[in-house]
Amino acid sequence: MKFNSLKKPQKSLPYDWYFQQEVYEKEIENIFTNDWIYVCHTDSIKTNHYRTLQLDKKNIVIIKNKKNEISLFYNTCSHRGSQIFQNEEGIIKTPSIMCPYHQWSYKIDDGSLINTTSIDYENFNKRKYSLKKINFYIWNGLIFINFKKSEEFHLKNVFQYFDPIINKIKLDSFTVGHIWKKIVRCNWKIYWENYSECLHCPNIHPELSELVPLYQRRLVDIKDHPEWNILKDTYDSPKYKGGLKKGSETWSADGSAQGFSIREIQSDLESRGQIYISTWPSMFLGIYGDHIRIVRLIPLNSEEVELTAEWLFETETLSSSNYQKENVIDFGILVMKQDASISETNQKGIYNLQGQEGVLMPEEYLIRNFHKYIRNKLSL
Amino acid sequence: MKFNSLKKPQKSLPYDWYFQQEVYEKEIENIFTNDWIYVCHTDSIKTNHYRTLQLDKKNIVIIKNKKNEISLFYNTCSHRGSQIFQNEEGIIKTPSIMCPYHQWSYKIDDGSLINTTSIDYENFNKRKYSLKKINFYIWNGLIFINFKKSEEFHLKNVFQYFDPIINKIKLDSFTVGHIWKKIVRCNWKIYWENYSECLHCPNIHPELSELVPLYQRRLVDIKDHPEWNILKDTYDSPKYKGGLKKGSETWSADGSAQGFSIREIQSDLESRGQIYISTWPSMFLGIYGDHIRIVRLIPLNSEEVELTAEWLFETETLSSSNYQKENVIDFGILVMKQDASISETNQKGIYNLQGQEGVLMPEEYLIRNFHKYIRNKLSL
Amino acid sequence: MKFNSLKKPQKSLPYDWYFQQEVYEKEIENIFTNDWIYVCHTDSIKTNHYRTLQLDKKNIVIIKNKKNEISLFYNTCSHRGSQIFQNEEGIIKTPSIMCPYHQWSYKIDDGSLINTTSIDYENFNKRKYSLKKINFYIWNGLIFINFKKSEEFHLKNVFQYFDPIINKIKLDSFTVGHIWKKIVRCNWKIYWENYSECLHCPNIHPELSELVPLYQRRLVDIKDHPEWNILKDTYDSPKYKGGLKKGSETWSADGSAQGFSIREIQSDLESRGQIYISTWPSMFLGIYGDHIRIVRLIPLNSEEVELTAEWLFETETLSSSNYQKENVIDFGILVMKQDASISETNQKGIYNLQGQEGVLMPEEYLIRNFHKYIRNKLSL
Repeated sequence: MKFNSLKKPQKSLPYDWYFQQEVYEKEIENIFTNDWIYVCHTDSIKTNHYRTLQLDKKNIVIIKNKKNEISLFYNTCSHRGSQIFQNEEGIIKTPSIMCPYHQWSYKIDDGSLINTTSIDYENFNKRKYSLKKINFYIWNGLIFINFKKSEEFHLKNVFQYFDPIINKIKLDSFTVGHIWKKIVRCNWKIYWENYSECLHCPNIHPELSELVPLYQRRLVDIKDHPEWNILKDTYDSPKYKGGLKKGSETWSADGSAQGFSIREIQSDLESRGQIYISTWPSMFLGIYGDHIRIVRLIPLNSEEVELTAEWLFETETLSSSNYQKENVIDFGILVMKQDASISETNQKGIYNLQGQEGVLMPEEYLIRNFHKYIRNKLSL
Repeated sequence: MKFNSLKKPQKSLPYDWYFQQEVYEKEIENIFTNDWIYVCHTDSIKTNHYRTLQLDKKNIVIIKNKKNEISLFYNTCSHRGSQIFQNEEGIIKTPSIMCPYHQWSYKIDDGSLINTTSIDYENFNKRKYSLKKINFYIWNGLIFINFKKSEEFHLKNVFQYFDPIINKIKLDSFTVGHIWKKIVRCNWKIYWENYSECLHCPNIHPELSELVPLYQRRLVDIKDHPEWNILKDTYDSPKYKGGLKKGSETWSADGSAQGFSIREIQSDLESRGQIYISTWPSMFLGIYGDHIRIVRLIPLNSEEVELTAEWLFETETLSSSNYQKENVIDFGILVMKQDASISETNQKGIYNLQGQEGVLMPEEYLIRNFHKYIRNKLSL
Repeated sequence: MKFNSLKKPQKSLPYDWYFQQEVYEKEIENIFTNDWIYVCHTDSIKTNHYRTLQLDKKNIVIIKNKKNEISLFYNTCSHRGSQIFQNEEGIIKTPSIMCPYHQWSYKIDDGSLINTTSIDYENFNKRKYSLKKINFYIWNGLIFINFKKSEEFHLKNVFQYFDPIINKIKLDSFTVGHIWKKIVRCNWKIYWENYSECLHCPNIHPELSELVPLYQRRLVDIKDHPEWNILKDTYDSPKYKGGLKKGSETWSADGSAQGFSIREIQSDLESRGQIYISTWPSMFLGIYGDHIRIVRLIPLNSEEVELTAEWLFETETLSSSNYQKENVIDFGILVMKQDASISETNQKGIYNLQGQEGVLMPEEYLIRNFHKYIRNKLSL
């Protein structure tokens, strides 16, 4: 009878990797500049609006034009390097992209230079001065970028944890009902490790552990326990069978799903409670009874990571006058704040034992996989 | 018919030069420690007062004694290195310079050590413990320093843009009516580039462009346009001939010069509107109908520069009870704040395209000269 | 007739040593990781409580159990590196040490791992995952640590200035009546230098110099003056004989000692006024008429040092209803704030003359010794 957990102690990553500048710079180069990075759901940008994203030194702009087409550029004018779009989001006020400094104008669709405001040089080759485009791919409404120009998007390379059930859902037809941001003072890998295990659940997430009884056992999956099969048949309880507490329908403050259910996978959700997919280094997504939550992780420096959560709903859910979206949003924020707080505590302890490392326990097999990914990337 | 503008596209400086620490340190060493640096007008220091100046790690003090003689020293006691003068400006409370820590006293005029407060050593050589003097030169009331002890001040080496007209003015007889400071979050070279072109004027400085119609054409000088001679003869307008908007007399909020005019060059000013001189890396000076404005630039680090503006007036202007100096001061501050804001936007964009550089347009010939100066200094 | 003072000028330390990062890192390694560091008096930790101490990157916890036994550990869980004790001080809420992240539990006395919260690995060797202990020694109630595991505590190696009189006092029976902290923006060595001379006393400490008349002469000890013996016999005054101003009993705002006197050395105190001992790099201790003050110095970085002062009293002094402890506490804080302020002024001046150094005057023989210690440690 197979189970997920590790069979013997594994070394964690060296503690130095959680704060040293050289390691951080290597991660930016080998991971965040190489892998597909999640930006946002297409519905997070309104028609004729833009959003900007800061990733280490890079500042990019994502534009949705009047025809709802998406384009992405480095947010820098080709003239003397001015930033063009100055806010985190905003409306496109001009028919073209216009730099605020000297009013150079560029086509919204392909970034090609339309006009400068200068006297013309003879033989001035405008094509050399287009905005720099960014390689992107929209999968099912989710925008991903890759700083390597020629990199192709292949689903199996992008998602480390992919559940084919998600193919049943039209993610791109969902509406973004809320966006929430938080800066967490820990290395980005510490937050991923926290996400990858439930050993901390009973003490850090009492409310969530009540809703998902399996978490009281400090497990992510019923198959994490060596005797999962026996236990599952012995006890008629979600603590051993998985799924939500009896009577609960979704991840919300009171367990009720007031919204329209995600029909296509409702039966899966009933038995499993929630469905996850994730892509390192930048995103995990959870599907719950009546909503989806996407969390993006972007490191700000070696000791800070920025979380951006998007809540997705069926469009009719948000348009329903009875629906209290706070019921699910507040619950998600509660859980993320709890994780943020303990991740900051974890970070504070790792400076102490330089040149050493921790140990992974049986239930931490997902962290083990994450560490293999990191080790592999840093030895590139 | 000759004109000023560039004939073909020129590469701007590499974007990395606007934020990299190594480049900044080289600039401090090769430029700010080598060239003559502007400190302030002699009238900015009151009799028997001091001013301090921080330039990178160096902190210096400029003293004006009771006979209005100027002396400059490193602001550090020879005993155990205490700072002596603790504020940006202040009165000299003691007949000699006295360190606040152990009351060592030094002569104001030459910094020689008068007394310690200790038991005497046999054969203690007081001459070894004078305050360290700084090489300075007062040109026409403007105090300049050079950290190289033996460097001589030669007008033509100090001012890159010098207008001999200024020799007609007794700058040292002017009174400083106001001092204003602002920290701008951009590399110091970005602010100089901004100062060196008017392509940005119509959009960034609408008020100024109304006052100086030539600026509506995004030009600094009527000769910047290839057909300037024809245009000048064709149109009877300051937009093509230069000078202020008809009816305006000086750079002020309403265009009026309520103050006494700068007589010696009044006819020049009437035709030209304003006269500029400048010295890299630290100062530019503008002469307007009834006042002069000097702007000093001191980098605080690779991404911040401190502006200090002094407004100079004929003494009788300031003593006139009718004169509203705010009329010209507020206008100058408005223009500088506009430049500061767009310079900060420029800075935000330059991190994006490392290893690349922008392009200079025809009207940016003054920036081209500035870049030659920088390239030359950094290759020393 | 021998006197303490230096006979000829000595170079101070190079100014660069007061701010350069490389020097600071070498000091952390060669001094703060090698020498015995003072932590606190045992009475500063209540029964069943802990205190934490941050020293550069190291965060340690000092625990006093229910039997008032002391143990010290690195404040980091052996699992995945979480910080365990999260505040500067607090109560021990559980019978064992418990990590807040995954509830691993450790014995309070020796830090051995009691339990994890995971499925057991076969052959999991708990002994490998104890908390890391820290080498410490309690001398007379004062807790010292050494990061070198096998280093032994020898009194004469630890205290540079030790007065055997202190052996008469049962320091460990004293009660800590107050703790005060202050961050001073100067290199830690600048504060030690300030502590080591009284040339600054008359101007920086007018109140203290009135209380201790010798300090008006800018001397620490009457023997600092070449003619101390003659002067002592000539004048019947504490200015030449030492001791407090007539009528004063202790270091307090009004000079009165309302508390119980430190009996064992009362006669010594009457003639001398105060008694000092000190241990570089982290502690000096002063004994006054009715109290003791211990000051701990811990560098936060090359340009900041944290002071922590503990006031010790005879237990019956604090339990006396009449006793106004503020009388002595406020006076101590006044003196330390004066020292902090002028030390910050000293720090501001030392950047100016890189590659150079100051000069030590005759009375600065204690600084000379301190500098020998520093030079010796940095050349290791």
